[in-house]
Amino acid sequence: MNSFGYKLRYTTFGESHGKAIGCVLDGLPAGLAIDEAYIQSELDRRKPGKSEFETARKEADKVEILSGVFEGKSTGTPIAMVIFNTNQKSKDYTNIKDVFRPGHADFTYFHKYGIRDYRGGGRSSARETAARVAAGAVAKLMIRELGIEVLSGISEVAGIKAEKFDYQSAKSSIIYALDAQKEEEQKNAILEAKNRHDSVGGVSRVIIKGVPIGLGQPLYYKLDGVLADAMMGLNAVKAVEIGDGCLSASSLGSLNNDAIRANGFLSNHAGGILGGMSNGEDIVVNVYFKPTPSIFQEQHTVTTTNEEVDFSLKGRHDPCVAIRGTVVCEAMAALVIADMLLLNMGSNMEGVSKYYS
Amino acid sequence: MNSFGYKLRYTTFGESHGKAIGCVLDGLPAGLAIDEAYIQSELDRRKPGKSEFETARKEADKVEILSGVFEGKSTGTPIAMVIFNTNQKSKDYTNIKDVFRPGHADFTYFHKYGIRDYRGGGRSSARETAARVAAGAVAKLMIRELGIEVLSGISEVAGIKAEKFDYQSAKSSIIYALDAQKEEEQKNAILEAKNRHDSVGGVSRVIIKGVPIGLGQPLYYKLDGVLADAMMGLNAVKAVEIGDGCLSASSLGSLNNDAIRANGFLSNHAGGILGGMSNGEDIVVNVYFKPTPSIFQEQHTVTTTNEEVDFSLKGRHDPCVAIRGTVVCEAMAALVIADMLLLNMGSNMEGVSKYYS
Amino acid sequence: MNSFGYKLRYTTFGESHGKAIGCVLDGLPAGLAIDEAYIQSELDRRKPGKSEFETARKEADKVEILSGVFEGKSTGTPIAMVIFNTNQKSKDYTNIKDVFRPGHADFTYFHKYGIRDYRGGGRSSARETAARVAAGAVAKLMIRELGIEVLSGISEVAGIKAEKFDYQSAKSSIIYALDAQKEEEQKNAILEAKNRHDSVGGVSRVIIKGVPIGLGQPLYYKLDGVLADAMMGLNAVKAVEIGDGCLSASSLGSLNNDAIRANGFLSNHAGGILGGMSNGEDIVVNVYFKPTPSIFQEQHTVTTTNEEVDFSLKGRHDPCVAIRGTVVCEAMAALVIADMLLLNMGSNMEGVSKYYS
Amino acid sequence: MNSFGYKLRYTTFGESHGKAIGCVLDGLPAGLAIDEAYIQSELDRRKPGKSEFETARKEADKVEILSGVFEGKSTGTPIAMVIFNTNQKSKDYTNIKDVFRPGHADFTYFHKYGIRDYRGGGRSSARETAARVAAGAVAKLMIRELGIEVLSGISEVAGIKAEKFDYQSAKSSIIYALDAQKEEEQKNAILEAKNRHDSVGGVSRVIIKGVPIGLGQPLYYKLDGVLADAMMGLNAVKAVEIGDGCLSASSLGSLNNDAIRANGFLSNHAGGILGGMSNGEDIVVNVYFKPTPSIFQEQHTVTTTNEEVDFSLKGRHDPCVAIRGTVVCEAMAALVIADMLLLNMGSNMEGVSKYYS
Repeated sequence: MNSFGYKLRYTTFGESHGKAIGCVLDGLPAGLAIDEAYIQSELDRRKPGKSEFETARKEADKVEILSGVFEGKSTGTPIAMVIFNTNQKSKDYTNIKDVFRPGHADFTYFHKYGIRDYRGGGRSSARETAARVAAGAVAKLMIRELGIEVLSGISEVAGIKAEKFDYQSAKSSIIYALDAQKEEEQKNAILEAKNRHDSVGGVSRVIIKGVPIGLGQPLYYKLDGVLADAMMGLNAVKAVEIGDGCLSASSLGSLNNDAIRANGFLSNHAGGILGGMSNGEDIVVNVYFKPTPSIFQEQHTVTTTNEEVDFSLKGRHDPCVAIRGTVVCEAMAALVIADMLLLNMGSNMEGVSKYYS
Repeated sequence: MNSFGYKLRYTTFGESHGKAIGCVLDGLPAGLAIDEAYIQSELDRRKPGKSEFETARKEADKVEILSGVFEGKSTGTPIAMVIFNTNQKSKDYTNIKDVFRPGHADFTYFHKYGIRDYRGGGRSSARETAARVAAGAVAKLMIRELGIEVLSGISEVAGIKAEKFDYQSAKSSIIYALDAQKEEEQKNAILEAKNRHDSVGGVSRVIIKGVPIGLGQPLYYKLDGVLADAMMGLNAVKAVEIGDGCLSASSLGSLNNDAIRANGFLSNHAGGILGGMSNGEDIVVNVYFKPTPSIFQEQHTVTTTNEEVDFSLKGRHDPCVAIRGTVVCEAMAALVIADMLLLNMGSNMEGVSKYYS
Repeated sequence: MNSFGYKLRYTTFGESHGKAIGCVLDGLPAGLAIDEAYIQSELDRRKPGKSEFETARKEADKVEILSGVFEGKSTGTPIAMVIFNTNQKSKDYTNIKDVFRPGHADFTYFHKYGIRDYRGGGRSSARETAARVAAGAVAKLMIRELGIEVLSGISEVAGIKAEKFDYQSAKSSIIYALDAQKEEEQKNAILEAKNRHDSVGGVSRVIIKGVPIGLGQPLYYKLDGVLADAMMGLNAVKAVEIGDGCLSASSLGSLNNDAIRANGFLSNHAGGILGGMSNGEDIVVNVYFKPTPSIFQEQHTVTTTNEEVDFSLKGRHDPCVAIRGTVVCEAMAALVIADMLLLNMGSNMEGVSKYYS
Repeated sequence: MNSFGYKLRYTTFGESHGKAIGCVLDGLPAGLAIDEAYIQSELDRRKPGKSEFETARKEADKVEILSGVFEGKSTGTPIAMVIFNTNQKSKDYTNIKDVFRPGHADFTYFHKYGIRDYRGGGRSSARETAARVAAGAVAKLMIRELGIEVLSGISEVAGIKAEKFDYQSAKSSIIYALDAQKEEEQKNAILEAKNRHDSVGGVSRVIIKGVPIGLGQPLYYKLDGVLADAMMGLNAVKAVEIGDGCLSASSLGSLNNDAIRANGFLSNHAGGILGGMSNGEDIVVNVYFKPTPSIFQEQHTVTTTNEEVDFSLKGRHDPCVAIRGTVVCEAMAALVIADMLLLNMGSNMEGVSKYYS
């Protein structure tokens, strides 16, 4: 259950403070040029310690490909990628050895497995998402061949909402802000919370451009359903919207339906998905991250023996996980699209016959 | 790809205006008492034509069990359930034979499969959800044995929000309203839209009570991720929240973390899920339904040969799909929980050894 | 776990003496002409009661398609097929209500599920294979479009081995004998055993012609591995060979390797599979069926309360299950090939790009 | 498609002459003591270069655990294990760069993927089985906790058959011979073939002791079906038998049925499996390996551009792959049993209720 995807499927492994994290990406078509520098550049976008808006933990996050690539191309065999951990300050965590951090998975892991891997959250640490980004980078290389692009940025921080979505400017923003005019205010909100030993939430907005019509498998491996799973499965995510999302529920049918004309849709309330399949418009997904649960204020909690303690966390933490999270959302989106592209290939006999002719 | 679940897995089949719809539920433990009257009563809650707030199509929705039950108990073999369609007015649909209804899956199905099953949406009709309710009813019977209960109701219609959530009163409300004081206003909004040949959206709120700690498989078959997929996969759903959902993103860590005391959590912002696993609190899911796309107003669209037409839909439709949808949300929640209960059974060697001793 | 296949996947349901048996076939490409008469003709080849070499139970085995076909073509949605049981003499089985029949699954089912469905073996009856044949018939229709054909026959009965394999004459033989010169002897062996209240085993030989090179997913969804699972999973099968099979183990590399020339292989010891993938030659599979466990001689066994009894079975049984079994082997082979054809479509970027261009 | 297992699932990666091979084992219960020395000792049993009966390639096959183990115990998270390749003589293979070796997967890989990874077979090399042995060693540790043991040995080499099966003496035999009295003759046959630049086949016999009744999921994830897939999926395997296997087909029902008495079965023709489930007796599997296709004699073949060549292979190869293969068969058997143990845990409500009480 550490795998994701049906035809393009990846499996991750590794703990925050173990020897390494990594992934095995399986089902990638052979013959794809694997640009290692590009994969590394995607990891660099996610890696911690780039600014005061992120955790101070510094990790090189240098990815190494162990298999599946020969003479610069994918061979059709599984691509294993590994990132060795270099900056695991395990001692940082000894004070929480027997304490469940509020808002974290410590409590549930312990009750499920009977094991307390107290080293920085162990497997449940967001550090695992580096492996997702590596796999996602390969997926991006694949879908790019078919003219598909995934973009994202931060549309909201601490309740401060973007009023426009500029995915290009987001690329160069240190907090991936979609609205340059709101960026300063958003940054201040982050630093303010950080100074108060608190944290803030945020929203990542992802769009996918150039998707052919018909991706997604109705009724139980729907494009929207799988995107929802992919995003909700990320640490700290508590809500996922497609297109107009929550707002659709207070709209009217006459307003919410996207009229169709010969050259496409006149609007995109649907966020590019109808009946679980892509309709050719941009796919739009909003991903809501809660505030980082790791804060330095004193909190009420219990120990592994259920004794009540009041407790102040130490260590290094992101004041707003949505920021680095948006890079992970892109990776997940790319992986979902790549998987759906492959799955879609047997949809009708015409396509099957064409392929085998 | 018409299956859902990993260990408890069901597969549905059938089109809105074909001979029958149904499901095969696989992986149910043997020895469960199968109360057919209860299954039928769940279908009755979802079935159309009960009031002016629903489509006028009347279907008996009489479920028949074909296999998997012997002498009143599940045998461990697949339970096939079938509902024969009785009231398929296929002629209603001939006027849309070559036209894509805006907001519907017609457009995407046709492009994916090259087939136009114009009879009431064919497979993409919400009629398929009757099969989900049948499977979900069996799942409810199973989880009830372990003290788990799924409840739901409508928390919002056309932007009119419930201010309290009374799941018991929702049961007897014709629109499953959670807030009896808002019910009249909500009903009026539905009828008003209906009279204007329009439709409204709504929100279903689902809670699951009595869930043991530790359900959910991190990191890729998480309880919240799978619930999100299950709900987002329903017709017309555009957003899913767990616990505080979207609101979390504008909260602070110090407010959003649920403090832990010896006898449980002091709040439930997390909606009962931490790190993808249940934490013992009520699980809370909000499901946002867009307005029914089937409206009688004239709309812009195209034909299967891409000719532009302005077109008025006929037929019988729900003015607010969220209402009957909430029954389906319950079914999906029950199926997810039942699956997770079974999956969880091999989590640690202590449990495995206990089982085999 | 009542499903088979990855991209083309079917699920069966039903018990020997329940209301119905059937299957749901999912993942079939849209646009395939569905010839219902052909499907029925395949079921007729398997159905019981055609001759003295088979059980006297007569079943019409009339298949009804409930979904997934519109205007004579597959729509891409699941095809549900059901066969209602008409000739269930449940009373035949009351004398074995509490007794485990030797060589049958009664003993293991009871211990696993704690339930004793004594009616003709319940789910474990070979009657379930009618559903496989229905699904397989659809798969045959699909692969035929790509020039692929599955043939089979009986190569051995009661140790009497065919010396030639004539798949055409097997079609018209009442025992599907591959060698017309051995047929009489084989028939006599069956009747002799039957008269002695005993039963015999047999071997089905399946070939698949016209398979393109490259089907099969190394290393864990290999064509030979999946064929082995498919065949070994049939009632009464105890061994599966690919190509020369067991004989390979006593051969030499220099004899067993198939030399390659520009227009193909010079021999086919490999049975058409190298490294888990088809090599373009005929695929050859031998399937070994044990003698029918249902015999009328007195046997030692125990009851559900573990009391020892000596017991004589009654009822109607095939004296040699391999005969009707060979039809099922063909169905499984067709299902495996169809699945592999679909899976293969994303193997390399050249093919993916061609598909989406 | 480089994964195996349903609840306990592993994924392998790596090529014969790439940087590393390895696996990720997922779904292992937490709390299992992970004895690294034992895992290494299992790899040592399979590793090449131990004697003249094996390839001269020497690999340390030193396994490194990257994740999933904390303080000596499994944590319930995926266990990644990696073996770095140290002795890849890629130059050995340049003479076959454009030539398909007869009996190998070169031909099919090239046609499927359009890529020629000529380095020692690349992914299709039996070197991948080291990763299986590592995963299998962990599975053995798990099932041992429940009193289950897997044993194996070589029952046949070059047609020379064992007349008794002594699994203890097989452990200390350099060719894992089950019959010490045949060992010398079997060794001679191997060396003779080797001297003639040829190779021989062989048979591995695996037994599994102590399996509880009821493992295996009827009807489509049967214990025998999955074992057949597991074994047939190994390089060079061409046939798999359960229990009496092929011989069953020439037996009679009255001889082949295993009579049941109060304390168990009186014989074990069934090889411990009835109806796809374990019946409590020893599980017996015979696995037939063809002769190593890599031989030094001149052979007919073609190049990647389909030119005919006569060609003599160089390099280092096992004269009889069955020998090291038997260690891999054990690993696969252990993985299948461990998976089935976990899957079986939700079979009936009594067990489910007991688990959650």
